[in-house]
Amino acid sequence: MKIIADAFGGDNAPLEIIKGCLDAQKAYGVEILLVGDTKKIQACAAENGLDIQNFELLQADDVFQMETQPTEILKAGKNTSMAVGLQALADGKGDAFISAGSTGALLVGATFIVKRIKGVKRPALGAVMPSAEGPFILVDTGANVECTVPMLCQFARLGDIYMKKILGIQNPRVALANIGAEETKGTPLQVEAYQALAKLPDMQFTGNIEVRDIAFGKADVVVADGFTGNVIVKMYEGVAKMITNSLKAMFMKNLASKLSYLGVKGGMDEFKKKMDYNQYGGAPIIGVQKPVVKAHGSSDARAFCNAIKQAIDCTQNDVCGAIAEALKGGEAHGTASE
Amino acid sequence: MKIIADAFGGDNAPLEIIKGCLDAQKAYGVEILLVGDTKKIQACAAENGLDIQNFELLQADDVFQMETQPTEILKAGKNTSMAVGLQALADGKGDAFISAGSTGALLVGATFIVKRIKGVKRPALGAVMPSAEGPFILVDTGANVECTVPMLCQFARLGDIYMKKILGIQNPRVALANIGAEETKGTPLQVEAYQALAKLPDMQFTGNIEVRDIAFGKADVVVADGFTGNVIVKMYEGVAKMITNSLKAMFMKNLASKLSYLGVKGGMDEFKKKMDYNQYGGAPIIGVQKPVVKAHGSSDARAFCNAIKQAIDCTQNDVCGAIAEALKGGEAHGTASE
Repeated sequence: MKIIADAFGGDNAPLEIIKGCLDAQKAYGVEILLVGDTKKIQACAAENGLDIQNFELLQADDVFQMETQPTEILKAGKNTSMAVGLQALADGKGDAFISAGSTGALLVGATFIVKRIKGVKRPALGAVMPSAEGPFILVDTGANVECTVPMLCQFARLGDIYMKKILGIQNPRVALANIGAEETKGTPLQVEAYQALAKLPDMQFTGNIEVRDIAFGKADVVVADGFTGNVIVKMYEGVAKMITNSLKAMFMKNLASKLSYLGVKGGMDEFKKKMDYNQYGGAPIIGVQKPVVKAHGSSDARAFCNAIKQAIDCTQNDVCGAIAEALKGGEAHGTASE
Repeated sequence: MKIIADAFGGDNAPLEIIKGCLDAQKAYGVEILLVGDTKKIQACAAENGLDIQNFELLQADDVFQMETQPTEILKAGKNTSMAVGLQALADGKGDAFISAGSTGALLVGATFIVKRIKGVKRPALGAVMPSAEGPFILVDTGANVECTVPMLCQFARLGDIYMKKILGIQNPRVALANIGAEETKGTPLQVEAYQALAKLPDMQFTGNIEVRDIAFGKADVVVADGFTGNVIVKMYEGVAKMITNSLKAMFMKNLASKLSYLGVKGGMDEFKKKMDYNQYGGAPIIGVQKPVVKAHGSSDARAFCNAIKQAIDCTQNDVCGAIAEALKGGEAHGTASE
């Protein structure tokens, strides 16, 4: 299996990307095709004493800047490492693509260069997130700010397949993110989506999930429009971070608190591990023909390596093929056209 | 000052309501008008050895049930303690009303019995919430699931006045809850609201607040449509609760961890206090002619007493009068009609 990686995406590129690729190569025995300015990649590796002779390199002159309009990836950004990498994936030069660069550009690029699976209205950005009971996937987390009912139904299907194939959950509990459990709750979008989701065959729709219950793991697939999904994931991150910071300050306050920390260090480490976003990799772009994974912009080597692992899992379990298969059924499988 | 309290709203009524009213009477020297089945109130007080001879009682035969349609408060629910209490407020039998009962019914009742302040499009449900930097108010948190741009502008104005009058913040930072800092982010509602908010006079609009930053206290007034606001407040509660539960389990795990707890108990208590929702009272219904406060459904005596304190502050600082004054200016003050 060959993994294509964007050497120049994210805050810590290219060094942490190179390291993450080396780790993945060692751990999973995959081939690596690293895309970017090859001279800079080689110089960075040499400077840091990293042996990248087993990598294949692909030249791309430019870097896609975070502040550039995402659609430019198809125009002025054609020679960026992200665009060249996506094109390499589309051309069959590798099996999956990972980038820690601009989410918007990666979405546009994945949609128009790698292309959608037949029947997919709009690819979605998934986020595999930790909860008190284990991981769940939230679809969509921001790719589609405005959504229709058929789009939400398809997000449910995409998330359902992802959890079955990648997390090995046999019969995922699929729920609609809402402001109340009753089917009359929410805006017209949620009210109508509830009825449509309830009619989908071959899926365990468990109704609305009050967002308050999301962190407790009461659903395996949480369906939301991209705006709401983005609010959910960012509130989750923000509140968790604020509390973690406060706890750190509390433990570091004085000698007594520092000593106390030793007694709960094991438990704290366990909890931190459970709550670590990066353990599940990045955010998969679901609904395009080949696996594309968005690694966090702040990815270090470990996070990037985990995103590669996720791409490997997507490839090995043929998530894209399973989605294509599921969507063949069309309306019967909850993919009614709008 | 006379506070009207719904004796039969919430999970712990009437006992905790009675206790909360007694506490408030003692602490703040206010008169209490307690509404509900007076025989039951007296029996409950007697059973628990509570002296309520200083309370004024107002008979209401029924209790508004949580599962009843909110609009029924104007019809079949007219004899409930909530409706009778709101009517008493409208009739000038007291200065403010507090209930821990159905939020929806209280909103409908406040709007149509107590009535809106002239110029208010739709009353909003505020939530004063803790952050790393101190309290902020989120408006709206669910009263208005679907919103227009002029409604959001008015929520900004209502929140601004509330923070000035009740929390004593001179020049509140008013921000729009959104999925990115750039003014082009969000659905058309947020994009248009950004422009309209930026034009409001006499207000410090600081732009979009990424929801990730909300818990860090980067705004004093967070403006949102009721759906998004409800998602924010419930994610906040849910994530905080999940983490708190995990920490409790961690500290209770074994003898070493229990001993460790002693070393950080002070810090933990301080943090818990800072993060305690109930310290700021309940959720004010902003935009009606007299102070109406929704206490949490799970309110105990302390939480209910804090909600009474909040109602006292609203009355003393004449929040309703300040809103009426601000809205007199009409369009110039950001209350353009739709």
